[in-house]
Amino acid sequence: MGTVEGTAANWPQSGLNAQVQPLVEDLLRNRDWLRIKTERTESGATLVDAGIDTLGGLEAGRRIAEICMAGLGRASISSSQPSDQWRWRIGVTTCDPVLVCLGSQYAGWMLSSEDDGGFFALGSGPARVLAGKEELIQELGVTDSADQTCLVLETDQRPPNGLVEQIAKDCGVSPGNLTLILTPTSSLAGAVQIVGRVVEVAMHKVHALEFPMGQVVDAAGSAPLPPPSPDFITGMGRTNDAILFDGEVHLFVNGPDDQARQLAKELPSSASRDYGRPFAEVFQAYNGDFSKIDPLLFSPARVTITNLESGQTFRGGEGNRNALNASFGEGA
Amino acid sequence: MGTVEGTAANWPQSGLNAQVQPLVEDLLRNRDWLRIKTERTESGATLVDAGIDTLGGLEAGRRIAEICMAGLGRASISSSQPSDQWRWRIGVTTCDPVLVCLGSQYAGWMLSSEDDGGFFALGSGPARVLAGKEELIQELGVTDSADQTCLVLETDQRPPNGLVEQIAKDCGVSPGNLTLILTPTSSLAGAVQIVGRVVEVAMHKVHALEFPMGQVVDAAGSAPLPPPSPDFITGMGRTNDAILFDGEVHLFVNGPDDQARQLAKELPSSASRDYGRPFAEVFQAYNGDFSKIDPLLFSPARVTITNLESGQTFRGGEGNRNALNASFGEGA
Amino acid sequence: MGTVEGTAANWPQSGLNAQVQPLVEDLLRNRDWLRIKTERTESGATLVDAGIDTLGGLEAGRRIAEICMAGLGRASISSSQPSDQWRWRIGVTTCDPVLVCLGSQYAGWMLSSEDDGGFFALGSGPARVLAGKEELIQELGVTDSADQTCLVLETDQRPPNGLVEQIAKDCGVSPGNLTLILTPTSSLAGAVQIVGRVVEVAMHKVHALEFPMGQVVDAAGSAPLPPPSPDFITGMGRTNDAILFDGEVHLFVNGPDDQARQLAKELPSSASRDYGRPFAEVFQAYNGDFSKIDPLLFSPARVTITNLESGQTFRGGEGNRNALNASFGEGA
Repeated sequence: MGTVEGTAANWPQSGLNAQVQPLVEDLLRNRDWLRIKTERTESGATLVDAGIDTLGGLEAGRRIAEICMAGLGRASISSSQPSDQWRWRIGVTTCDPVLVCLGSQYAGWMLSSEDDGGFFALGSGPARVLAGKEELIQELGVTDSADQTCLVLETDQRPPNGLVEQIAKDCGVSPGNLTLILTPTSSLAGAVQIVGRVVEVAMHKVHALEFPMGQVVDAAGSAPLPPPSPDFITGMGRTNDAILFDGEVHLFVNGPDDQARQLAKELPSSASRDYGRPFAEVFQAYNGDFSKIDPLLFSPARVTITNLESGQTFRGGEGNRNALNASFGEGA
Repeated sequence: MGTVEGTAANWPQSGLNAQVQPLVEDLLRNRDWLRIKTERTESGATLVDAGIDTLGGLEAGRRIAEICMAGLGRASISSSQPSDQWRWRIGVTTCDPVLVCLGSQYAGWMLSSEDDGGFFALGSGPARVLAGKEELIQELGVTDSADQTCLVLETDQRPPNGLVEQIAKDCGVSPGNLTLILTPTSSLAGAVQIVGRVVEVAMHKVHALEFPMGQVVDAAGSAPLPPPSPDFITGMGRTNDAILFDGEVHLFVNGPDDQARQLAKELPSSASRDYGRPFAEVFQAYNGDFSKIDPLLFSPARVTITNLESGQTFRGGEGNRNALNASFGEGA
Repeated sequence: MGTVEGTAANWPQSGLNAQVQPLVEDLLRNRDWLRIKTERTESGATLVDAGIDTLGGLEAGRRIAEICMAGLGRASISSSQPSDQWRWRIGVTTCDPVLVCLGSQYAGWMLSSEDDGGFFALGSGPARVLAGKEELIQELGVTDSADQTCLVLETDQRPPNGLVEQIAKDCGVSPGNLTLILTPTSSLAGAVQIVGRVVEVAMHKVHALEFPMGQVVDAAGSAPLPPPSPDFITGMGRTNDAILFDGEVHLFVNGPDDQARQLAKELPSSASRDYGRPFAEVFQAYNGDFSKIDPLLFSPARVTITNLESGQTFRGGEGNRNALNASFGEGA
């Protein structure tokens, strides 16, 4: 298997955005049942409110997670053993974790504006490939061309009109063919779609550790559904902690065993210097300065690495139930 | 999130029955594979036999569970930890638990007839909204208009023709556009679709406890698949015990913490005065008089309540493996 | 329920191949994302390479498992309890286990050729019914007629052209309407589709034990995803061990309790004289001569038999974690 290229050279060079469009249309058609709302921006783009002035819900979040994956991955909500305290989990599999998670799902497009008092959000979804603004997209070498596109923003604010127009322009589509889905961190839909990133978070750290992307063949992962919190920092902390303290990912790779063994050692969250406390505490200890947090903190608690070239399996990390409970806020 | 209305005011005022129709057609088209049968009644309605003179099966039951939810919820059959004795479980999520579970899935339409020696069954599904015969439907304020409709009856008898005609009339559809799905309690399809009510059972008790419906945002639940029994009382007992002794539901609500804490305390089956014995014993102790059984008995064993307004989570109840085994009938 | 026939007499006498065609087309349309490749044979048949010169992956394997079941069963990949070492499992349910697993999924069509240095593979899928070459197909009495068909071969070699033409001829279709899907044992797609046979393996042993097929009503099963190995014997061993040491199946049958009790005793892998060692060791102990291995070895570790006529449940076998770990190759 080691001679087969898994990287961009083998990817279809178009179609990622066409692939997602039926899922976006299905989301819009079912908006009433899913308790989300659509609006038109000044310039004609479609805004989907999935938790700002709406209730949203688990199923809306699940569908948005699949939209982030361009329709090429599955997110499912299911319960693990009944004795677990936090037993509802989001499970994720994809057609191709490099293409789907890094090429589409990763929230890597930084969007900011000074208009209307300022706006900042990270964009996720296949529009990133059209825009091609990120180094990661260029490195992966994935491209696309499409008339319609969709971007998911983790935010509780509507983006200013100028920014919406700029996004459309960057993607080469008319604003009327752009759908922006807004999911607040504190909403149920937001919690589901963020934790649905458990494989993506692993893939991003695999990339940061400079493991060759072409050697990653497949992955599957799951993480518990965190209870949302109306407090932004608490809520954000929980979505991170779901992955850091109870996320698990099984990766299938090619290459020498030493490399796979090393990856199993370095990939889990526990390998980070900032591991151990609920994320909200870490965040506050650095006075809310994200840039000071060890970027290698963001990874699943438990990883399993199977080397397809040798057939050997390596493991690293473990679950941390106490830290999870401290973060998730059990009421008395 | 507390300022958003979750109740009828926000619901689409039509379309519940249109939503279910593709699922009904798919069930009929695959009837041979699913081992169910269709017949025409005298007046032209379609009867689906899912376990009276047919084998039916798990997948037929799973699809019927989704039809009861008007196509707006998912029922899945999956196995929990391999060490569990009763490890196959039905998992349920919905787009909106109030609308889907109480508005459609709840078996609340009492249908009876003196014809042909008498007939009694409870109707479930979106036809209930068209008929609007129940207080609950009126209270929820959900309405619909449709040419075609579908009702699921837990029964092992065919309804008399007069009753079929009355149902069509109550729904405002011609009998030829009415589909009645019959699932005996003792059949596999019946067992699956009944246990697929685990969230609905919780929602109904939430309602009975007078917790405000507009404060329920979302829910997910699961319960073990009970082994069917040819003995009606044993079989009915098992479907109830699956929920009472091993059902679990996670609810997401709004409101003050005291109210959520109280709900976690009162909602589990163990809070009922009739809790503890297999349901068939309780039923027989009251000489088969349902009206004497504590209506608050019908609820899941374990509940988790997350208050979205505070971010706090409250728990109540626990699984009862011994009672489950006593009910489910392990052979020696 | 005991009076209802579950065997061929009740099966739809055509349509199995029509049923699968949309799944085959979907697989081909998404080939780039699924990282599989299609080629045309000399005579115009479509070959799908799902892991020979391609990466393939878990999702490709999952879809191929459903194609083996003619689109009448579900295969899902999900994680069981996080504390399990081999926690990703393939779960399987079907519309009808006799028809789906024995009639279509069982790899029972022996295909061999002396051309091009020799070729041997076992064919699985609905084409088996068209060809009707096997005693089992005749015994089940299931037939079909179709213009297009599909066969899945567990192999890492392309079949010689003469054999491809013979397969088309045996099925009564033109080669241009034949799709052959090739899944090597050592590939991820292969591992998934093989372990997706956990219910089929049980059904085949139920048949070998001469339990009346007409008394089998339904089944559900699951088995852990084995890590593939580039070594053929190790890889083949692991796919077998996944089922032998950690597979589980719940069967629903009709008949007397004695018969169900007996089935629970005889069906598990542990009832075989060859049970106990990793399969690769058994295979080598018999010098690679399959015909010497106890055919009754091939069965799930744990079985649960519910007798629908009595409502009693019987169990047999147990998981063997040590043997599983010895087989699956934990690296150090």
